[in-house]
Amino acid sequence: MSADATSHAPGTTINGVSPQQRTIEETLTDTVLASFEKCEDPRLKDLMQALTRHLHTFIREVRLTEAEWDAAIAFLTAAGHITDDKRQEFILLSDVLGASMMTVAVNNEAVGNATEATVFGPFFAEDAPEIPLGGDIAGSASGQPCWVEGTVTDTDGNPVPNARIEVWEADDDGFYDAQYTDGRIAGRAHLYSDKDGNYSFWGLTPTPYPIPHDGPVGMMLEKVGRSPVRASHLHFMVTAPGLRTLVTHIFVTGDPQLEIGDSVFGVKDSLIKDFVPQPAGTPTPDGRDLEGTGWARTRFDIVLAPTGA
Amino acid sequence: MSADATSHAPGTTINGVSPQQRTIEETLTDTVLASFEKCEDPRLKDLMQALTRHLHTFIREVRLTEAEWDAAIAFLTAAGHITDDKRQEFILLSDVLGASMMTVAVNNEAVGNATEATVFGPFFAEDAPEIPLGGDIAGSASGQPCWVEGTVTDTDGNPVPNARIEVWEADDDGFYDAQYTDGRIAGRAHLYSDKDGNYSFWGLTPTPYPIPHDGPVGMMLEKVGRSPVRASHLHFMVTAPGLRTLVTHIFVTGDPQLEIGDSVFGVKDSLIKDFVPQPAGTPTPDGRDLEGTGWARTRFDIVLAPTGA
Ligand SMILES: [Cu+2]
Ligand SMILES: [Fe+3]
Ligand SMILES: [Fe+3]
Repeated sequence: MSADATSHAPGTTINGVSPQQRTIEETLTDTVLASFEKCEDPRLKDLMQALTRHLHTFIREVRLTEAEWDAAIAFLTAAGHITDDKRQEFILLSDVLGASMMTVAVNNEAVGNATEATVFGPFFAEDAPEIPLGGDIAGSASGQPCWVEGTVTDTDGNPVPNARIEVWEADDDGFYDAQYTDGRIAGRAHLYSDKDGNYSFWGLTPTPYPIPHDGPVGMMLEKVGRSPVRASHLHFMVTAPGLRTLVTHIFVTGDPQLEIGDSVFGVKDSLIKDFVPQPAGTPTPDGRDLEGTGWARTRFDIVLAPTGA
Repeated sequence: MSADATSHAPGTTINGVSPQQRTIEETLTDTVLASFEKCEDPRLKDLMQALTRHLHTFIREVRLTEAEWDAAIAFLTAAGHITDDKRQEFILLSDVLGASMMTVAVNNEAVGNATEATVFGPFFAEDAPEIPLGGDIAGSASGQPCWVEGTVTDTDGNPVPNARIEVWEADDDGFYDAQYTDGRIAGRAHLYSDKDGNYSFWGLTPTPYPIPHDGPVGMMLEKVGRSPVRASHLHFMVTAPGLRTLVTHIFVTGDPQLEIGDSVFGVKDSLIKDFVPQPAGTPTPDGRDLEGTGWARTRFDIVLAPTGA
């Protein structure tokens, strides 16, 4: 990627372009930048000027053809037309370009040993039921039962009691409850850590699922030879007073999609956990009778960063 | 703009970010770049990788907030929903960010004395009527009559006979024929240069008009304090065998919008022409009787670049 690194720098961007042409292009960028100088909102001005610089440098660097510009307009138009209350193609586009994950990264800067954040995804719901410690989030969602346990602490190792833990996941057909039309609430719940910061619940062993890929984003992924599938994961959102809200997933050691590549780049090594298979008949931690089916167990210790970090 | 120049270079982009955080962000970009490595179309791969680099650098450089990311998604969604067969908000967006003009620039590189290109705009029509030399393009379009004349030559000064010259413009209410619902064809025509490369026609003295600004792009222009108005202009497209097709406008010396700023950045100094007012009663070049109204005249000598330049 040395070519990438150098070609992003000014003065090295444009190869084989005459000085006359180069002046024309640079003057155009300066004119567009200057057009935002009257903006009274300094942050908006910075954003528009930075967007202009990167967009112009992109076009100049790749020497974008008029046919490619037409294709980009057609792509955005198609994305706009498939987008409605249920489908959000622009978020998918941001996701598959890693722009969503980069936004998460810059808004959740690394703080020592604090648990890393990842993408929020489109399937969180405000109204998930509350379950007690050790309760089951599955409802009618199908899949292998999975015992999940851990502690919530701050970055100094102090337990965080009463942290609100939202968890949600797809069933083993790869669908969230909201993707069914019957109004079910399944595969999601919230619970609270106990006085020592401990939590536990029954979920489902995560399985892979594709992002919606029957639209322009899916077509782009196919053209570039990329999989639309997300690595298997279980979503968490953890909130506690005085601590930074954590939005993250855990992933599954050995999931082949980790090698193929998560379609939205949500994976961090620190978030890949062992989901240990338990043969049918293995006693469960809470004495639950699983009627002769196998299950799995995993541990996820959550470390919350200080607020404002 | 020295800050702009330096902040676009790698290694200086991200200020006040810890080495740990910086590694996280750089690793994410590398992962996304690598995801396009399997793309079998080398040009598409280059485009997607360049897009990724500039998009990621933009997000990192401005430290895009999650609220700003939400606003960007909402903007694109609104642009998608206002776009239909008649309205193209993504083209407007490209226009007001100077991306359309930059694309024109990189596809019509400066060649010596060749006439400069500018944006095509959305109002060209394939089926404009043919007029003879000295004919009138106005039809039912209202405005001050304007005599336009010039020559078409190549960059060596050789006349180009029989060049096809398409011309189109708004009426003095600021509307193109296609913006009326009555199906009129007005303010547009095509003609051919004569054996010495000369051409002439009656058009209308150009007047300013706004781009459609009742949508998200118009709202953005208002927020940043920019005018949606285009500098007054007359469109040309000139084609001749063996020469590069020229898409351009001419602008009007003294038009106040030249100072305020053309909303789509189409102006080049070389394209600003004197439109010389002719008091009522001044004899016309072709003896046309204008029944006591004033008129204007201008000259636009067109120099076509070689094909492939
Ligand atoms: Cu850039
Ligand atoms: Fe998910
Ligand atoms: Fe126009």
